[in-house]
Amino acid sequence: MDLQQILDDIATEVASLPDLGRVATYIPELADVDPGHFGLAIALPDGRVLTSGEADAPFSIQSVSKVFTLALALGRLGELLWHRVGREPSGHAFNSILQLEQEAGIPRNPFINAGAIVVTDAILEGRQPREVLGELLRFIRGATDDEDIRINDRVAASEQAHGHRNMALAQFMAAHGNLRNPVEMTCGTYFHQCAIEMSCRQLACAGRFLVGGPGMPRLIAPARVRRINALMMMCGHYDASGDFAFNVGLPAKSGVGGGILAIAPGRASIAVWSPGLNANGNSLRGTYAIKRLTEMTGWSVFG
Amino acid sequence: MDLQQILDDIATEVASLPDLGRVATYIPELADVDPGHFGLAIALPDGRVLTSGEADAPFSIQSVSKVFTLALALGRLGELLWHRVGREPSGHAFNSILQLEQEAGIPRNPFINAGAIVVTDAILEGRQPREVLGELLRFIRGATDDEDIRINDRVAASEQAHGHRNMALAQFMAAHGNLRNPVEMTCGTYFHQCAIEMSCRQLACAGRFLVGGPGMPRLIAPARVRRINALMMMCGHYDASGDFAFNVGLPAKSGVGGGILAIAPGRASIAVWSPGLNANGNSLRGTYAIKRLTEMTGWSVFG
Amino acid sequence: MDLQQILDDIATEVASLPDLGRVATYIPELADVDPGHFGLAIALPDGRVLTSGEADAPFSIQSVSKVFTLALALGRLGELLWHRVGREPSGHAFNSILQLEQEAGIPRNPFINAGAIVVTDAILEGRQPREVLGELLRFIRGATDDEDIRINDRVAASEQAHGHRNMALAQFMAAHGNLRNPVEMTCGTYFHQCAIEMSCRQLACAGRFLVGGPGMPRLIAPARVRRINALMMMCGHYDASGDFAFNVGLPAKSGVGGGILAIAPGRASIAVWSPGLNANGNSLRGTYAIKRLTEMTGWSVFG
Amino acid sequence: MDLQQILDDIATEVASLPDLGRVATYIPELADVDPGHFGLAIALPDGRVLTSGEADAPFSIQSVSKVFTLALALGRLGELLWHRVGREPSGHAFNSILQLEQEAGIPRNPFINAGAIVVTDAILEGRQPREVLGELLRFIRGATDDEDIRINDRVAASEQAHGHRNMALAQFMAAHGNLRNPVEMTCGTYFHQCAIEMSCRQLACAGRFLVGGPGMPRLIAPARVRRINALMMMCGHYDASGDFAFNVGLPAKSGVGGGILAIAPGRASIAVWSPGLNANGNSLRGTYAIKRLTEMTGWSVFG
Repeated sequence: MDLQQILDDIATEVASLPDLGRVATYIPELADVDPGHFGLAIALPDGRVLTSGEADAPFSIQSVSKVFTLALALGRLGELLWHRVGREPSGHAFNSILQLEQEAGIPRNPFINAGAIVVTDAILEGRQPREVLGELLRFIRGATDDEDIRINDRVAASEQAHGHRNMALAQFMAAHGNLRNPVEMTCGTYFHQCAIEMSCRQLACAGRFLVGGPGMPRLIAPARVRRINALMMMCGHYDASGDFAFNVGLPAKSGVGGGILAIAPGRASIAVWSPGLNANGNSLRGTYAIKRLTEMTGWSVFG
Repeated sequence: MDLQQILDDIATEVASLPDLGRVATYIPELADVDPGHFGLAIALPDGRVLTSGEADAPFSIQSVSKVFTLALALGRLGELLWHRVGREPSGHAFNSILQLEQEAGIPRNPFINAGAIVVTDAILEGRQPREVLGELLRFIRGATDDEDIRINDRVAASEQAHGHRNMALAQFMAAHGNLRNPVEMTCGTYFHQCAIEMSCRQLACAGRFLVGGPGMPRLIAPARVRRINALMMMCGHYDASGDFAFNVGLPAKSGVGGGILAIAPGRASIAVWSPGLNANGNSLRGTYAIKRLTEMTGWSVFG
Repeated sequence: MDLQQILDDIATEVASLPDLGRVATYIPELADVDPGHFGLAIALPDGRVLTSGEADAPFSIQSVSKVFTLALALGRLGELLWHRVGREPSGHAFNSILQLEQEAGIPRNPFINAGAIVVTDAILEGRQPREVLGELLRFIRGATDDEDIRINDRVAASEQAHGHRNMALAQFMAAHGNLRNPVEMTCGTYFHQCAIEMSCRQLACAGRFLVGGPGMPRLIAPARVRRINALMMMCGHYDASGDFAFNVGLPAKSGVGGGILAIAPGRASIAVWSPGLNANGNSLRGTYAIKRLTEMTGWSVFG
Repeated sequence: MDLQQILDDIATEVASLPDLGRVATYIPELADVDPGHFGLAIALPDGRVLTSGEADAPFSIQSVSKVFTLALALGRLGELLWHRVGREPSGHAFNSILQLEQEAGIPRNPFINAGAIVVTDAILEGRQPREVLGELLRFIRGATDDEDIRINDRVAASEQAHGHRNMALAQFMAAHGNLRNPVEMTCGTYFHQCAIEMSCRQLACAGRFLVGGPGMPRLIAPARVRRINALMMMCGHYDASGDFAFNVGLPAKSGVGGGILAIAPGRASIAVWSPGLNANGNSLRGTYAIKRLTEMTGWSVFG
């Protein structure tokens, strides 16, 4: 199987797709990006990183950051985390507040916004945002083996300025006693983690610890790797997770910046980026690219 | 890896569990079953079927039947089926009617009751229930290579007599034009498919067509196998599907009779039965058994 | 105050309104009616009945019948009825099933469809539909002092044939044990009560028992009259009840056939009919007419 | 009709009730109040104010303040206000956020918390909270003819400290563009209006402008008076408004401090206070007192 050829073919196919999708518009920093960018990278057990397209261009990872904060939170709290956030698909939009009301302020899973805010709150634990964001960056840089990963402060400020909906989620959970730090502090940290910038190459490398098996870094226990992968499969694409599982068949986490991190257990860490989103808010061309990759490689976990 | 030893060890472990769970009580035929039964069977690519416990005792497969009707419906309608039923986890209970109202009578997926009723309605397509049930039994008997698989008429009659909730779902979908046959006919067929009886050995054999790879029967296209597995992973345990993925990591479908069919792609078809249910309505000891099996074998699809 | 002049002026105003509204379309018998019909009648304590427009044309009273069955049910069960149906506005559409799921099969009030079906079920109480419909007609004929009030069998049959949604509500309540008679029997009775035909003159006379005070027939206790009026105010126009109270200020019950019965306590029973409905499913010109009537007469209960 | 005797009898009856209800506990200033207080006052068209019990003891009016801010907002914006808030009963709890999500940030009515926050935001309109609170106090003092009405700053600060849920509502509406001032400013104003303290005598006098007719102050147009009364009837007791209409039959607004303002159009403005609340969060003994008052006087608007 010539993986480099497959990646090149996918880039060619993607370029000929009629649709670009539409960039996220809620902050100018995302709205102003050209939807036609496309990058793809896969990190393999033998140490190779194969790429096609703009694999070295940095983009805003947004909700993909939730995978890394979840890994940190499980390291800090262990299974106690599950008293504060569930492990089920929500069946609702990523920013829905409805279930919080019906379920006493406990978000359905760590990958919808409410759940990710709780995870960030759990990591904070009385510390300063700066300290926690430093820890997060060290974790990602360590996983990636690349010191050049940063937070875009302009994006963070813009998230904050347009963050009413996330602050509503946070205030609501605070009302139910499910936030332990001041709402502004937890939200501020959350807005900054969403503003981390990485390239596809960096993101593919950062995801290697979720691949498992020989040749891959072991940053957390294998049982925990399996569980994070399970959560990515079940909840990684919000209320389009079923569709992604049906069409692609890999655990993956998308971000509104157009990035997706997907894991082929034992085989590869995959990162793709294309800023144009489909109707579900996931990268249109990125989803297509990973779908084609699993079809060509047979990497679907479902046979 | 001595699989027979693993199965025996699991049976021993299960016997020492403090909890039995509680049998379903909505019909007397299920309520009167001893919750302590336990059977386990795995069908392997080399043709072997390994078992432990009461693997040859027949039980009511109930919602596990939804896997077989889905396979039939995809064979008849192909991808057109997805105009009438979705592919996303519902986030609600298996018999919820709430989303049907909010989503114009289109059920979220084929494994909640509403979705399964639509699937059955799609197979009926103007035919008589007897004809369709015959086709279903032939499909299962063919997959199992065992002619001795039947419908328990007493259970079917009892389902019908206590079927107000399912009839409410069906009437509601009929109001939205998402049933094509008389409500009584579709529901009658559905109640009968739930009353099919199989043993663990039979059910494990019946599931082989979802394992894929050499040594396994190919009854439907590999792409369709992957998709059914994806749906089982995402929706097979209703609103506890996330928990099952998190703890077990295999596509699986449970039934209220205490049976579970799980698929380890490329490796094995697994059937377990224990009538005592947990709080989510899934077999308590059956879930435990499959969880232990994946831990001991490393068969989780998540690494 | 020259009431006849007011009624004539209203008829003239209504005739010049630009909008007719749209007739209900779910059954042909309603869909085929000319939306431009208009009739108005008021029954006064001094025994006079004033009219304008087509006040003697019969129309399908539909949900206005719920007022009469409620009166009968309170006579039979007294306050025990409130164990099976609530007294609060639902905040949802007249045929919504959502709250039934969240509230264990107990409808919010007797004027949404689910609640009215429970009320009819409560009157049935093991009797035959024919007997109960006879009792209902006798009650209405007695209140009206007019023997010429009948059920339109063709409308009833059509309601039945298109009654999937109401049957879904009934089946759902049966599943919760909140129906005591066979679903088909309760629904059949309900479909027939909706098919009663009356003219505005007849309906205004039939409502006199809810006006109270000297000159009006006393069919039920005054405390019960007040309570039925309160329920009409709070719930008589489904999820547009607030709007009706805001604009009109009288207890009233609307029907999808375009009829409205409104009560000015101590002053008048008012019936209006115009088949064209507004966006909320209430008579467009009928609502306008009653609004103008309260403005011209000062009959609003709110000052 | 000897009204003073009726008031005295009610006070005696109330004192012998077995239940006190339970005080609100979300802030210490309310939690520490003795639930057994009871006061009652009625202001009549002839200028008399009759009282019984502790009618001159000040209490926290809390949500009763929503009536006065609504009157102010209608004066400022007129009917334009209804673009930002509805006029229908919500069918949900006073602090529910669920419908806001389903209905694009437009609250159902001005008397649930979300709606009252919008009303306050509409009055602010770029002004400073101090200025708006001054205007509100002037309005209430003018209506009451009593300069001695103040805001309890300690209560206001406590509301703020425990105001996560209200801030969630406000942030959510800000996300939908339905707040025009900074969230903190609108919420700060809202928390202060809830902390206004009045006695029953003062509150009964303050409500006279809603009674209408000769002898009562005319602060707003009669049509607007009717509409505010209609809203109080439909929505004044949150999801127990139907029950209040059914049992009492007067437009009224309750507060969590145990106060209720009720209007008998053309007849009286009624204020009652007893801090123990029933299961719906409305004054237990206060509700009883007004129910008895309408029974003894025949003041129900429903006949």
